[in-house]
This record gives sequence, structure tokens and C-alpha cells, in this order.
Amino acid sequence: MKVLLVFAHPEPRSLTGALRDVAVRELEAQGHGVRVSDLYADGWKSTVDRADFPSLAPDARLKVPAASRADFETGTLTDDVRVEHEKLLWADALILQFPLWWFTMPAILKGWVDRVFAYGFAYGVGEHSDRRWGDRYGEGTFAGKRAMLIVTAGGWQPHYAARGVNGPIDDLLFPINHGILYYPGYDVLPPFVVYSADRLDEAGFEPVAERLRERMRTLATTLPIPYRRQNGGDYLIPSGELRPGLEGADASGFALHLDGAVKIRNPL
Amino acid sequence: MKVLLVFAHPEPRSLTGALRDVAVRELEAQGHGVRVSDLYADGWKSTVDRADFPSLAPDARLKVPAASRADFETGTLTDDVRVEHEKLLWADALILQFPLWWFTMPAILKGWVDRVFAYGFAYGVGEHSDRRWGDRYGEGTFAGKRAMLIVTAGGWQPHYAARGVNGPIDDLLFPINHGILYYPGYDVLPPFVVYSADRLDEAGFEPVAERLRERMRTLATTLPIPYRRQNGGDYLIPSGELRPGLEGADASGFALHLDGAVKIRNPL
Repeated sequence: MKVLLVFAHPEPRSLTGALRDVAVRELEAQGHGVRVSDLYADGWKSTVDRADFPSLAPDARLKVPAASRADFETGTLTDDVRVEHEKLLWADALILQFPLWWFTMPAILKGWVDRVFAYGFAYGVGEHSDRRWGDRYGEGTFAGKRAMLIVTAGGWQPHYAARGVNGPIDDLLFPINHGILYYPGYDVLPPFVVYSADRLDEAGFEPVAERLRERMRTLATTLPIPYRRQNGGDYLIPSGELRPGLEGADASGFALHLDGAVKIRNPL
Repeated sequence: MKVLLVFAHPEPRSLTGALRDVAVRELEAQGHGVRVSDLYADGWKSTVDRADFPSLAPDARLKVPAASRADFETGTLTDDVRVEHEKLLWADALILQFPLWWFTMPAILKGWVDRVFAYGFAYGVGEHSDRRWGDRYGEGTFAGKRAMLIVTAGGWQPHYAARGVNGPIDDLLFPINHGILYYPGYDVLPPFVVYSADRLDEAGFEPVAERLRERMRTLATTLPIPYRRQNGGDYLIPSGELRPGLEGADASGFALHLDGAVKIRNPL
């Protein structure tokens, strides 16, 4: 397999940095090809602005989807974005690795998504009509590829449990796993999450590292989160609402979008 | 009231920009004091890095919470961050206004949160022990103040409905409303959301503007989302898990953290 790891931590000597090295070494030991986008090291530009759209007339009103579509179609998006496109098309698997800041990714990684996931590339793909609302949620540019998150959280695991005060980790990560990764077609694997990351000492590191190595060894075989396909029959089109009766007896909120017939969610 | 509006759109001539002007004018007409942080116009720095922590020794490993705490305590965080602190302490109400990009805020606004919400200011406040896990979720620096989101979404409303394929809007915004705003103590009002924002024409604008004016007129009186207080007795401490039996019959996921005895959620 070919793997792209996008890394978003400002300190290479961090736990997040140490775990990146563990992941990359294990993937290479398994014979995978690995490339890393180190956003801080590369000085990644985080903010979407006019400079992202070279074809936009200087006095034209910036409409981001239209501008993104125009420059994507003519191959004139900025070089840094086009390099990331090439890496994403090269890779069979995408790993996003980041510390959980305010219950989601750091700004620099959000800026990678905002700028790289262009119209015509990651959204606005396929037919949009009354019969079909695009190739998304299980279809799209990255269909057949896999993605997963490696997340380090400062908080304590029980606070992220099913009844924990922060909210369940799977729900907190749903806007990323379902909304950013599944949307353009990735099969999304259960996330690898380390809790109490600031308190992990040397003795605690090795078991975590071994757990991560195991996830890297099974990257090609781990069952993905069973999100429902938009165009697979479970949703009414065009309203996008789940057909009545499909959900499990206790499902509501984000859990509606999991196929209850598939039981495996998080193996660890 | 004094109101701080944080605005995060790269195009002042956008719908988001027009709605900002509507909100500011109505607030001023009501006699409120208004200040605006226009992140794009101000060239806001989005990424947390070493330059944010002037006291950090050049060869020291950057641990973000510790570095944030140290420079906050000595009043040596960067000028741009300290200006935002002063505005936040000045304001009785905080409004975050942004286009929904990939189901959350744009990177520049996430970077405002990542940098401004310092340790000792927005988190790491109060006693942390086996008896108490800090002043957060209903307590903290911003207790007694109000906050709300003004969001423009390109997508279609049914896709964000209770059974919609994107996930329910209240759940998608939970990591922001609960995790970013309620966490440091704000009472969080139901969000103002405009759907199909890219398709709104002039005829469609005025009803939306009037709906927003009404929300601005009722900013001081709208009932907040009834999130449960961490230290109000509903959660076990220190595990942070909701006590058994408190949830409504049909609640799971994020909905567990709403007080079912309070029925009002979104008035619009």
C-alpha cells in the first residue's frame, strides 16, 4: 500500500511526533510506501483567501466554491495545493494525525482541508439533480481508498465515554470522519486515540506505541466504520433523509448513519 | 449590553458579510455597544506555534498547555491575543459568525479559538481534583455571559435535519456550542443558521435578514440551550459520566447532555 500521513503538531519532540515516527517505521517495515505532509515544518498556509484562486479577477467578488471549481478545472490552483492533490491520488490510505484542540483538529490542519479539498475534487463531484445528490458519502474521488485518524487528547478517557461530559469521542469525531473523510469517498477506519496524552510517561509510552503498530499492521484489513452510503438506498433522494424504519431501536443523532447490521465499530 | 462579534469570511461582499452588517446595525439600534473582530481584515494569525509564547526558551520543548499557562499568568501572551482577551472580558455577549466549511468553522476562526482560549483563561480554570474537575461546562471565566453562532451553510436544510445525511445541525455544532462556548462558561443560545446560502437571491435575503434582526432584538432574553452543568450534580466526579437515570427515554449521544426537563431548544 501507499500511505500519506498528514501531521499537524508544532513540536516534533511531542508525543504526537513520537507516535508519528512509530507509525511511519512500522508502515515501512511492512513494505508500504510512506509520504508525510508535515504541515508546521512546511509552513502550510491555513487560510482560504483570494490568493488561493489565481484566475479570480482582482475586483471580482470571491465566492469560494465557484472560485475553487474554476481553478481546479483549469489546473491553476496554487502549487502547494496541487502537490497535496498529487499525494492524495497517489496514496491508497490517508492518515490525519493531530492533537485534539477544542474537540477538533488544530487550525493548520483545518486549513489543509479547507484549501486542498477543492470543488470538483473532494466536493461538487458527480451528478446533482432530483435523482442524485452527487458522488459523496461513500462515493467520490477517493472511493476504494482508506482513511483514519491518529488523535492525542489531553483529557481523561471517561470524559469521552458514551455518557462522558465531553460527549462520546465517536460523535465528536463524526464531523471529521463522516463529514470530511467519508464525504469524498474514503472508507474510514476507527480512530486511534490516546487519552491523558500530557501525562503519559516513558513506561506508558511503549504499550501505546505497540497498540499503534498493531493498527498500522492491520491498516489494509481493519473493518471500516459502517457508515451508510448516500446512494445505496438507505436515504430518500433528494431530501437526504434516512428512510423510516432502518435505524436500530436505540439509535438517534449521528448513530442513525451507522448500518446497524454491521456490528464492529471500534476494535480497540 | 456589550457585544463582541467575531467575523470569519474572506469576502466582505458575501452573504455572511451582509448579515454581519444587518446584525451590527440592529444591535446598535437597540442601544447595545458593538465591537467586531474581523479576522480576515485584521490578518489574524491562525496557527499556534512557538512565536505565541514569548517566555518559552528557544531550545525548550513546546508543550502548548504549559506554555500557554506560563505566558497567560505573566501577562506576556502576544499583543493580538491580549487584545482579544480584553474584548472578551468587556463583552456581555459573544457572537461567532462564519460560513460552515466541512461541517465546522473555517481555519482562521479555529485559529482564533486555539490562540485566544488560553490556559488559565478559557481552560485550566478552578480546582482540579478528585472532587472537582475545574470550573467548566457552565462555570468559568465567561459565566453569566451569552454566546451564539451565526452560520451560513451552502447545503440544503433537509440534509441537516434530524434524519438528514449530513447529521443534525445541532449535533454538528455541538463540539463548538458545548465544547468551545459552554466549556468556559457561556450560556449558549440556539444558533442562527442560513441554509442554501449560495442560492439566496435578493428576494430571499430580506426575510432572512428580518429573522436575524429578531434574534438580535432578543439576544438578552432568548433561552439558552439547556446543557447540563458539570458541577451541578448531574455528573459523577471525577469520571464525568452522566448519572444513571437522568436521560430521557430516547436520548443518546450528545442529547444526553441536554436537561430533558427544559424543553426549548431552537426557537426558529
